[in-house]
Amino acid sequence: MSIQEQAAKLKLDSPRMASSTIEVRNQALSAIKEALLTNKDTIFAANQEDMTAAALAQVPAPVMKRLKFDDAKLAGVCEGIDNLIALPDPLHRISLARELDEGLVLRRETCPIGVIGVIFEARPDALVQISTLCIKSGNCAILKGGSETLHTNKTLFELIYKTAVENGLPTGCMMQVEAREEISQLLSCHESIDLLIPRGSNAFVQYIMNNTKIPVMGHADGICHVYVDKDADIEKAIRIIVDSKTQYPAVCNAAETLLIHKDAAAKLLPVLAESFQALSVKIRGTSEVKEMIDCEQVGPEAFKTEYLDYIMTVTTVEDIAQAINHINQYGSHHTDTIVTENSAAADSFMELVDSASVYCNCSTRFADGFRYGFGAEVGVSTGKLHARGPVGLDGLVTYKYKLQGNGHVVADYAEGRKKFNFKEL
Amino acid sequence: MSIQEQAAKLKLDSPRMASSTIEVRNQALSAIKEALLTNKDTIFAANQEDMTAAALAQVPAPVMKRLKFDDAKLAGVCEGIDNLIALPDPLHRISLARELDEGLVLRRETCPIGVIGVIFEARPDALVQISTLCIKSGNCAILKGGSETLHTNKTLFELIYKTAVENGLPTGCMMQVEAREEISQLLSCHESIDLLIPRGSNAFVQYIMNNTKIPVMGHADGICHVYVDKDADIEKAIRIIVDSKTQYPAVCNAAETLLIHKDAAAKLLPVLAESFQALSVKIRGTSEVKEMIDCEQVGPEAFKTEYLDYIMTVTTVEDIAQAINHINQYGSHHTDTIVTENSAAADSFMELVDSASVYCNCSTRFADGFRYGFGAEVGVSTGKLHARGPVGLDGLVTYKYKLQGNGHVVADYAEGRKKFNFKEL
Repeated sequence: MSIQEQAAKLKLDSPRMASSTIEVRNQALSAIKEALLTNKDTIFAANQEDMTAAALAQVPAPVMKRLKFDDAKLAGVCEGIDNLIALPDPLHRISLARELDEGLVLRRETCPIGVIGVIFEARPDALVQISTLCIKSGNCAILKGGSETLHTNKTLFELIYKTAVENGLPTGCMMQVEAREEISQLLSCHESIDLLIPRGSNAFVQYIMNNTKIPVMGHADGICHVYVDKDADIEKAIRIIVDSKTQYPAVCNAAETLLIHKDAAAKLLPVLAESFQALSVKIRGTSEVKEMIDCEQVGPEAFKTEYLDYIMTVTTVEDIAQAINHINQYGSHHTDTIVTENSAAADSFMELVDSASVYCNCSTRFADGFRYGFGAEVGVSTGKLHARGPVGLDGLVTYKYKLQGNGHVVADYAEGRKKFNFKEL
Repeated sequence: MSIQEQAAKLKLDSPRMASSTIEVRNQALSAIKEALLTNKDTIFAANQEDMTAAALAQVPAPVMKRLKFDDAKLAGVCEGIDNLIALPDPLHRISLARELDEGLVLRRETCPIGVIGVIFEARPDALVQISTLCIKSGNCAILKGGSETLHTNKTLFELIYKTAVENGLPTGCMMQVEAREEISQLLSCHESIDLLIPRGSNAFVQYIMNNTKIPVMGHADGICHVYVDKDADIEKAIRIIVDSKTQYPAVCNAAETLLIHKDAAAKLLPVLAESFQALSVKIRGTSEVKEMIDCEQVGPEAFKTEYLDYIMTVTTVEDIAQAINHINQYGSHHTDTIVTENSAAADSFMELVDSASVYCNCSTRFADGFRYGFGAEVGVSTGKLHARGPVGLDGLVTYKYKLQGNGHVVADYAEGRKKFNFKEL
């Protein structure tokens, strides 16, 4: 079967997937966890093939670490599955129940989005997380993982798929796409796929968005800011800047730009320069910063730069209003934090900064589904429609309106024989 | 100022609009209502200019009716504004409040989408409804109405805008686009506009979707179905079919296709043929239907046809499963209804039909923001992301995550010095 035909089969089965009971979905998740544990040697052997190929290709050490699937990673995904099972059913939640008139009752009820395609990086644990999130939320899943973990993905997918179907989920509950060339076929399946979630580089996500009619959820880039207010605690500020920049610089929620209130700069900058030197973080400062500390000088073009590295743009601002405008203009609406002991300044920042996550006195690195208590995430959204920020189960459902009548027709209301009489239930 | 410059000004003011208090927004709405009433003669005079031009252009009578803005329409929009004022603030609603660890508190709070562009048909009352919905929800609005009501729109917009600003809303709270040629400039404003809502023909909405990077919310077409089950009450079925087809055939929630369970066809069809003849509704039936009643014969190509007229496609199905598959395959996921006295069949239909609105024993014509008790609607969405079905205030807001800490950094959690301790607040 072609990718298109397989995707059409998922679409056809998606109402059956949507109507599977929470007992069946949880039972499938539980059986998947058992199957992973029982077959761990097979999985590890497949992973060894990928690791050998990667070693031969001289893949860098940090990437090798992500490709590896071992006992620790297995324990991690199993804990994730247990967390998912413990979460309440995201489906059939009623967010509105209203009697429109006698005998005419409207309910708004959550339901799955349908068929979701996720294109993700070479991390075998991601395949398990994404497929189990989709099962819990009643969505059919199309999984395309990074080709560096081809063998591991294939083994994991076959185990998960077989177990899901054996436990009562429809045969069209999920499919795998293996070859990179097949992505373009996926992009043409707008009649079968309801949502695409591409994870990866900015250029890759942009490519996907520009080449499909399917709605795309994701984030283009992560230009996150730390703003140190004039009323900041300097020691706290340093902790937060260092963590936001260095705890894991290669990811989207790492900070790229530091904004300092001009009245805080003289106190903060020398301490920061020392901390950054110890951690080998390079400062790229605007002219006012360059006057105070030794650093490379940059202009406003740096405000749009996502380094994903041990480099940070640093500039000063006249006041909090300028900081907020800077973030709204140059940021990517992902995650931004203020450091201040002034609660009015904090409230104003969190209200006026137009980002998915707005923080006070903590690191931008907290923007993550696990840390938010969502169990796991399929990605982070910087779009403003549907789901925003880390996307967990809540972001994988939509809703439908169900109206139950008894022969009710609109003519009666349009012609004045009856009147609506709204009553919340 | 160019359209792009004006839109950029709205974007810049959108955080101020978002942070306006509900008291200010409600006060502005109340003052707008007063301004409309006080200046009604000016508005009616402007409308008279549009009506004269339309009469000279020999615009058809039903369209003339929509262009007209008189005392009755004025009373209608004023009642709508009163309803909006009475509704609770859609902003700052907390949908999640969770302590992640001691002193680290996460809240998910509703906020406006930002800048919303609405392109709507020539109906002056629509301008008032859309602008007031945007004010209530804290969104900046770009309004482009149909050119047949140019003078009325201009007068209404100027009154509404002046009153809004006088009552404390930012000068960038709304703008008007008058010329049709300016739509293409709007489409290029993806850095300033967060959402476009085009209302109008299928071809027009498709054109907008295919020519902008701005997210578009709306519906492409409305192929709505009535399914008459084997356990249907025939009299009820006739009432519902007649209302769904004829109460207002030119709109998207009017039914286009009738599916009849084969066991119900012999009883239903002769009565239906008689009812439809009395109302001058033409039946286009498949071969099985043609065998039972006199009608034009059609094939499956008719299943994708939106007539918006006194014409209905009629076919029979083997069972409810075939009806559900038919609707999911040929429908537009707008609104579909089942007529049955069997509650298991109703539940199954409402669960498995993948549409924004799924009904039992009532007319498809109920799919409307006013009838759902939303006060008003900016449009109807057949997309599955964000808002679905009639879109009222709830569909005009998104949310942001606010995280308050006290120097919290991720390194403490990543390196095991601290553990998350999720607690719902």
